[in-house]
Amino acid sequence: MEKLLVFGHQNPDTDAITSAISFAHYLNESGVEAEAVAFEGPSEETAFALNHFNWEAPRVVNTVSNEVSAVALVDHNEFQQSATDITNVEIKYVIDHHRISNFETANPLYYRSEPVGCTNTVIYKMYQEKGIEIPAQIAGLMLSAIISDTLLFKSPTCTPEDVAVAKELAAIADVDVAEYGMDMLKAGTNLDSKSSEELLDLDAKSFPMGDKSVRIGQVNTVDIQDVLKRQEELVSLMTAENAAENYDLFVLMITNIVESDSTLLVVGNGADKAETAFNVTFENQTAFLEGVVSRKKQIVPQLTEAYTK
Amino acid sequence: MEKLLVFGHQNPDTDAITSAISFAHYLNESGVEAEAVAFEGPSEETAFALNHFNWEAPRVVNTVSNEVSAVALVDHNEFQQSATDITNVEIKYVIDHHRISNFETANPLYYRSEPVGCTNTVIYKMYQEKGIEIPAQIAGLMLSAIISDTLLFKSPTCTPEDVAVAKELAAIADVDVAEYGMDMLKAGTNLDSKSSEELLDLDAKSFPMGDKSVRIGQVNTVDIQDVLKRQEELVSLMTAENAAENYDLFVLMITNIVESDSTLLVVGNGADKAETAFNVTFENQTAFLEGVVSRKKQIVPQLTEAYTK
Repeated sequence: MEKLLVFGHQNPDTDAITSAISFAHYLNESGVEAEAVAFEGPSEETAFALNHFNWEAPRVVNTVSNEVSAVALVDHNEFQQSATDITNVEIKYVIDHHRISNFETANPLYYRSEPVGCTNTVIYKMYQEKGIEIPAQIAGLMLSAIISDTLLFKSPTCTPEDVAVAKELAAIADVDVAEYGMDMLKAGTNLDSKSSEELLDLDAKSFPMGDKSVRIGQVNTVDIQDVLKRQEELVSLMTAENAAENYDLFVLMITNIVESDSTLLVVGNGADKAETAFNVTFENQTAFLEGVVSRKKQIVPQLTEAYTK
Repeated sequence: MEKLLVFGHQNPDTDAITSAISFAHYLNESGVEAEAVAFEGPSEETAFALNHFNWEAPRVVNTVSNEVSAVALVDHNEFQQSATDITNVEIKYVIDHHRISNFETANPLYYRSEPVGCTNTVIYKMYQEKGIEIPAQIAGLMLSAIISDTLLFKSPTCTPEDVAVAKELAAIADVDVAEYGMDMLKAGTNLDSKSSEELLDLDAKSFPMGDKSVRIGQVNTVDIQDVLKRQEELVSLMTAENAAENYDLFVLMITNIVESDSTLLVVGNGADKAETAFNVTFENQTAFLEGVVSRKKQIVPQLTEAYTK
């Protein structure tokens, strides 16, 4: 069989980059030639992990069908999050932990998805099942992804399996999870080098709610005030984006990764929906939500309910 | 968690019925309450297997959302092959070995599909990975599914994994694979009790090819002449169905499961495409294809190519 390219989603986070690395290694050890690639270079958090475990970032590509006829997807399945030419290649493997949507194949394939906090938790199980040894450097990268996706096990998306696998990986990589994890997460919170436009776009997604559209971004920080000092400029940009894209509401989650809390900054007509959803009153367009860190579990469902009831 | 219903596709074959049984048992042993159900009673082949291993047929249901809010799919994923009310329930698990198409979920789920010959081959691996013991009766049913899907390992869909797993299951179930397998397959070839309409519909699927639509049915037998004695009536029904459904071609594969050969009976405008595809000349609308038993691998791709080049 010819070589496969292995890649995570567009706008890659630490799990997208490192699961491409760990799954490509798994395939190579299984006798299937594979190379990890990515659609962008690593974020600062991911670069910290790659540097710490002395591993090169995956080669950046724009398209895949110019190189290969078959691929493996990790940490995603939806075509709009994948290679722009994904429909021109055969998908042989998918390893993931998301819902399945906008995905189809012409042929049977290997598809493995589990409702856990991180793709690398699934990949760890596959290594164990096949008895393939995980090199210490790759174990460190896999651990980094679990720390990143679960915010050091504090996100409600984290499962007991993620915690147990992280412990095994930490032993192989020989690192102190709490210390290394906080250093890595902090490396991703260096927002000073980013413009306010970049900060709003860093991890923003749009969600249809009722007959409205809501935009929700998230930034991780160790100091919420450090982000809020830009509030005036952020509000002005969010207002403009609401008008241009017809969003009813723009919510920016500013998450303190040390305290595991978030402050919401909201702009738009639907602010009253957010007040209902989170049982808060916004003051100066902001509200503090204790213990809230997960957009998927603690923001989207509650806001959807407020919009649809 | 409340009880899950576990079911295979509409018009169930032996793998659809028995993988519901084997996966429901796996879930129950894993602490998840589950019940195997089916949308129809077992075929004669499946009934032979259930009777031999002394296991009750799954309860027949028409819909699922009136009973439960969450389900597990086995041996299929495409919604048009599933419960008619599949979009009203949450899909928690899919175990399969087909392409993925017309399938989506709102939430992350457990999805396990591998490009092997039988769903029960995948389920066997899951039992092994979790260290769950397979009862002898269920092992016999799982073995029956592998024999059925691979026509006793002779189909090109059969992989070395299917063969290896069947051997393990036969040891647990304490049966002679060749002897039991041929008895079971023969039980499914009792076509005398079926009308010609039933025979044509037994396992027929429609395929778009180029801008035409082609209907391909398959019947298993131990005596091809026994089916061809109905040729006049079959041709008349196939002609009527072509006209009613606008099929360019109707192909009936009459497969001798002992010899692992098929005779094609073809009706329609596209007979010349079939002659090109299989490099044969039809005499009296029939042609013998040595070593051909798999619609998926030996008929559909070749005919598609003839229609599209």
